[in-house]
Amino acid sequence: MTEFSFEITHVCAQSGARTGILHTPHGDVLTPMFMPVGTLATVKFLSPEEIEEIQAGVILANTYHLWLRPGEQIVKAAGGLHKFMNVKNPILTDSGGFQVFSLADSRKITEEGVTFKNHLNGDTMFLSPEKAIQVQNDLGADIIMSFDECPPYPATHEYMKKSVERTLRWAQRGKDAHSNPKQALFGIVQGGEFKDLREYSAKSLVEMDFPGYSIGGTSVGETKETLYKMIDYAIKYLPLNKPRYLMGVGSTDAILEGVLRGVDMFDCVLPTRIARHGTLMTSTGRLNIRNAKNEQDFGPIDVECDCYTCKNFSRAYLRHLIRCDEGLGQRLLSIHNLRFLIKLTEDVRIAINEDRFQDFKDEYFKKHHLNSINSKGF
Amino acid sequence: MTEFSFEITHVCAQSGARTGILHTPHGDVLTPMFMPVGTLATVKFLSPEEIEEIQAGVILANTYHLWLRPGEQIVKAAGGLHKFMNVKNPILTDSGGFQVFSLADSRKITEEGVTFKNHLNGDTMFLSPEKAIQVQNDLGADIIMSFDECPPYPATHEYMKKSVERTLRWAQRGKDAHSNPKQALFGIVQGGEFKDLREYSAKSLVEMDFPGYSIGGTSVGETKETLYKMIDYAIKYLPLNKPRYLMGVGSTDAILEGVLRGVDMFDCVLPTRIARHGTLMTSTGRLNIRNAKNEQDFGPIDVECDCYTCKNFSRAYLRHLIRCDEGLGQRLLSIHNLRFLIKLTEDVRIAINEDRFQDFKDEYFKKHHLNSINSKGF
Repeated sequence: MTEFSFEITHVCAQSGARTGILHTPHGDVLTPMFMPVGTLATVKFLSPEEIEEIQAGVILANTYHLWLRPGEQIVKAAGGLHKFMNVKNPILTDSGGFQVFSLADSRKITEEGVTFKNHLNGDTMFLSPEKAIQVQNDLGADIIMSFDECPPYPATHEYMKKSVERTLRWAQRGKDAHSNPKQALFGIVQGGEFKDLREYSAKSLVEMDFPGYSIGGTSVGETKETLYKMIDYAIKYLPLNKPRYLMGVGSTDAILEGVLRGVDMFDCVLPTRIARHGTLMTSTGRLNIRNAKNEQDFGPIDVECDCYTCKNFSRAYLRHLIRCDEGLGQRLLSIHNLRFLIKLTEDVRIAINEDRFQDFKDEYFKKHHLNSINSKGF
Repeated sequence: MTEFSFEITHVCAQSGARTGILHTPHGDVLTPMFMPVGTLATVKFLSPEEIEEIQAGVILANTYHLWLRPGEQIVKAAGGLHKFMNVKNPILTDSGGFQVFSLADSRKITEEGVTFKNHLNGDTMFLSPEKAIQVQNDLGADIIMSFDECPPYPATHEYMKKSVERTLRWAQRGKDAHSNPKQALFGIVQGGEFKDLREYSAKSLVEMDFPGYSIGGTSVGETKETLYKMIDYAIKYLPLNKPRYLMGVGSTDAILEGVLRGVDMFDCVLPTRIARHGTLMTSTGRLNIRNAKNEQDFGPIDVECDCYTCKNFSRAYLRHLIRCDEGLGQRLLSIHNLRFLIKLTEDVRIAINEDRFQDFKDEYFKKHHLNSINSKGF
């Protein structure tokens, strides 16, 4: 079994962006990479073969959700997430921190951990750095995350400082508790929009020496301008030879801005969530398949797309399926949106390897009327 | 393009049951056959490739549902149902009669047709024999159905007699209106549980000379004993060399009883509907995947099954997906149940061709504690 490692294959002479290879126990995957989210141990509606067909690299699963259902002991007894789901891709689990703060109620944070009521039945539960690691050890993903507080946004500097300090202590506790050397445990940089705290968080984590670093506390309602600052404030202190993962970010503009800044890994529920409601990402921008103009459009979603859905089904049929709330429609639209973002990262890698990523990004932004401050991407 | 025809390939010396080949414009399919239902132009959750992989022959689509959404003109503009859905299988559409009587409100039956309020928005609509055929001509299925009244059950002999007579006049009107010789229009035998009316209906339809005959007014709440009488009363008057289709019947016991009586085609929403709620058909009977005993069962649904789901996923994973209401779970369980029934008909065909269908049926009934009067099948 391959150990986890990261290899930079090229640095774009024009932009400084990089391509690389993540070596994992479940194979090599190329970066920059968009990672589909499989919250409950399923990339919603998709089979393992479809996950392969869209050329996905790493896929995500959510620790909090799987801890509640089916319970990590079931997954462990199955032989880990890969066998449970029957997927070949490398898997990454988050720490549960984000969900505890976004989904659970009545949470109380102490030095020890977080007490909260779960979102399913309101039962009181407790998640600590050690518990989050134990659950992730049992789930058996290739890449796992330190348990962190994902603080409210915006927060005061005073609150954020205490939070960052506690999250750093939690990172060390998680590192100490981590028992499976085949799983790469990433540290998560926090610090909100505060330059000094991002620097402090990043430097402290690097001292602890993780095999990879996440930038967290993002995708919490901040503007794009603030998001890019959060990346800038953190990434300069992260070692060049370790992978960087920008958590929860998956809009096209933010992916390109992230890559420009040296980010290697992205994830987001956006492409699948909007797909299930009929919104598609295309080479000409967003498309709502429900629109009447698609009623008798027998062409594909996107003539430039190579996905299964675009090769086999018309807008008219897909519109019909989504209007009728048919699962096949949700499935086919999810395939398209995921492939769209994965294809974007393929194009990104080619542009980097050909030393023209700055041009690629500029042209993409111009074509889609995006900017680096407040555009919404798609 | 092949014209529609039916060829009997073998008659079981032991039982009189028969195997055959339906030649259709979209290929040859073997009978006896179980036909998956794709109400809204989708066998819920399944791709065309999955429909092929389960070895489905003909698949169904519902005229009433497609008339309302997306409208038959959209399907016609797409080039017909096959192109709209991108499926290769032969397709059969029903007449809308059953849905008008089971789904619509405030229906009023006249000689001309049926006025009713549709189940989506309550709009008043009118369906006549001519309209039902026009819609089906536009949908473009290989096999289409005469518009019939599916009478309430039970009904008086007086009511049923008038209904049968009207349905016969509707059958003639539909035949006269039918404009596409590539589509085989079947007549539907009605008459409820009344021997004389089933005989009258069957003989009258045979005089009109259809390329195939359906036995309708079934699956409306009658007992199995009554269902088998309904078949007996009708089938003896149907020509041996034409296919017989028992509408809406898909329990294992009724399929075997039907085959014994000379039925060639079956359909039912049951296997996919119960699959979506977690109930599976297996070689050892029904299984509710939600049961706690499946929580740590890492074996397949059915060790005897050759379906994609059984080859790739454990009961524990499928239970998790269904408990979490995940579309992948509904998809995988639907694949299994459909394959289970299709495989049953494959075994039936082998038994007929080997002149041992009576034994096959008797052994199956014995193994599963079924009888010919009131068993529920599975």
